[in-house]
Amino acid sequence: MKAFVFNGPGLKALEDRPKPTIQAAGDAIVKIVKTTICGTDLHILKGDVATCTPGRILGHEGVGIVDAVGAGVTAFKVGDRVLISCISSCGKCEYCRRGMFSHCTTGGWILGNQIDGTQAEYVRTPHADTSLYPIPAGADEEALVMLSDILPTGFECGVLNGKVAPGSTLAIVGAGPIGLAALLTAQLYSPSDIIMIDLDDSRLEFARQFGATHTINSADGKAVEKVMALTQGRGVDTAIEAVGVPATFQLCQDLVAPGGVIANIGVHGQKVELHLERLWSQNVSITTRLVDTATTPMLMKTVMAKKIDPTRLITHHFKLDQIMEAYDTFERAADTNALKVIIEAGD
Amino acid sequence: MKAFVFNGPGLKALEDRPKPTIQAAGDAIVKIVKTTICGTDLHILKGDVATCTPGRILGHEGVGIVDAVGAGVTAFKVGDRVLISCISSCGKCEYCRRGMFSHCTTGGWILGNQIDGTQAEYVRTPHADTSLYPIPAGADEEALVMLSDILPTGFECGVLNGKVAPGSTLAIVGAGPIGLAALLTAQLYSPSDIIMIDLDDSRLEFARQFGATHTINSADGKAVEKVMALTQGRGVDTAIEAVGVPATFQLCQDLVAPGGVIANIGVHGQKVELHLERLWSQNVSITTRLVDTATTPMLMKTVMAKKIDPTRLITHHFKLDQIMEAYDTFERAADTNALKVIIEAGD
Repeated sequence: MKAFVFNGPGLKALEDRPKPTIQAAGDAIVKIVKTTICGTDLHILKGDVATCTPGRILGHEGVGIVDAVGAGVTAFKVGDRVLISCISSCGKCEYCRRGMFSHCTTGGWILGNQIDGTQAEYVRTPHADTSLYPIPAGADEEALVMLSDILPTGFECGVLNGKVAPGSTLAIVGAGPIGLAALLTAQLYSPSDIIMIDLDDSRLEFARQFGATHTINSADGKAVEKVMALTQGRGVDTAIEAVGVPATFQLCQDLVAPGGVIANIGVHGQKVELHLERLWSQNVSITTRLVDTATTPMLMKTVMAKKIDPTRLITHHFKLDQIMEAYDTFERAADTNALKVIIEAGD
Repeated sequence: MKAFVFNGPGLKALEDRPKPTIQAAGDAIVKIVKTTICGTDLHILKGDVATCTPGRILGHEGVGIVDAVGAGVTAFKVGDRVLISCISSCGKCEYCRRGMFSHCTTGGWILGNQIDGTQAEYVRTPHADTSLYPIPAGADEEALVMLSDILPTGFECGVLNGKVAPGSTLAIVGAGPIGLAALLTAQLYSPSDIIMIDLDDSRLEFARQFGATHTINSADGKAVEKVMALTQGRGVDTAIEAVGVPATFQLCQDLVAPGGVIANIGVHGQKVELHLERLWSQNVSITTRLVDTATTPMLMKTVMAKKIDPTRLITHHFKLDQIMEAYDTFERAADTNALKVIIEAGD
């Protein structure tokens, strides 16, 4: 089968690989219909993700059709159309039973990282009963690809951890795909103000279209001043960090109001400064989270009920044969205005 | 009247001062019966607290007898025995109505900081109706002095923010008075393990007497290793930072389990490093708080019901005349084994 392979830092290729087979009773083999590329895949290609070794098929998102199941799989059968979660979870360990599937002792984020992933014609999914979701009849499957990772990540790590609430004020620092996913899902909770902050005007234009009430280009260094003017000098109840670098985390510290939350989504590659000499008395919380995809069923209902339209995040389409071009388009987002790209692998 | 006065960094004196008078309709004048010294008072004396200017009478804790009330005070009358909260709160502003009394727009921590405090024969307490508490008949008033600040601080900033729960694992870094207050109040929620960490063996001996299940002297640099051995390699559900320096905050980051909380109590004088390059995926929360004293009535019930005995924190007694000696004893805690000192000012 065709598969997109990480061959070490800076080295990527579309290769021929053997079709995966059942290895454990809980496995399913899924024929990929549609998949996508995540910012994390770009981190892997740079060599930033130590757990992902050369030779790995990338990808942790997608929808497909069950092609084979292990003897222990009871919730799915061959032919079922399924959504693949980026998080594999056994459902049995202590973390899974607490709903913290991201830290499953035999799962977590392993797809396209510690085991081969979804940017291929077929993928083996461990713990299939608790890591796949049935696709409802009539669903827009492209929309559901956004539920593998990006929408639950924006929602769980940003909106839920950030305690976004009706009438609250929210700033999202970073209007890339993940910041926009937070923006879309934040509106489920009806905050009064959603201030989107980025350095790229075209992304801020997306943000306005997607429901931001205010946008700020922070290039002039006046973002804090502008947010304070919008919030009677108090700052925001929730500051979502959707970039993952020290400067944006610093900005969140400067924006959060007393009693507020800084909800980190960004994947950080280095330590940051935390200004406890000021924040110790400010009654703030700072939260981190690897998405658990615990809310995937809930988000699927909001998509089916047309409360959210995640297809708004999709800007480009490619066939699996064109995945090198898809990566190029996604990597050069500043030029191509790419948000999420759909890669069609089959039926 | 006699009053203990901060006269600038390193300068303190017991002086004669005029008795305070009612300045606003919500004020009360309280004749101090017993007061105490807080670690924060030592910070002020070093010049670390910019809001507290020379000439200020210190002290934000105490019990006393109402001596006069302003025209607007309805909850108290002359002769009532009262507990003074370290936090003054109007009860009317947005923060007060959210229970975040520490950020009251005309109050907060002002006593012995921005206005004269309780280390004197009399004190003026603004917003008396919502900043004083009636002392129940039969109460041990020395125990209640611990409810002005230290017990609610350990409880709100450490135990509540830290989500201490039945069966959970807890590490408290710092076995000084505030860490011990967290230890006492944590037991209201029946955690399974309470690991107390400090550099001072005599404080760790207090911790054992007060209910710590394990104590670790971190001088050998092996505290993390020892906590991991006690927690099956996972770390603790709650790490309470009760010191306020970068090294102890770092230790908390190394001790907290996936899904856990670092609850900061310490008053920090400088920024710290936050290891988001590791913690971004660990589903942790870091919380800060200036005590709101929102739980003072609840804690008073636990004291009256003998669920907590805060008099265990009291190691020394002095008269107001001896307050210079009291400060000396409290400052030299490493030699004197002082935790909290009671200063008796009157009846």
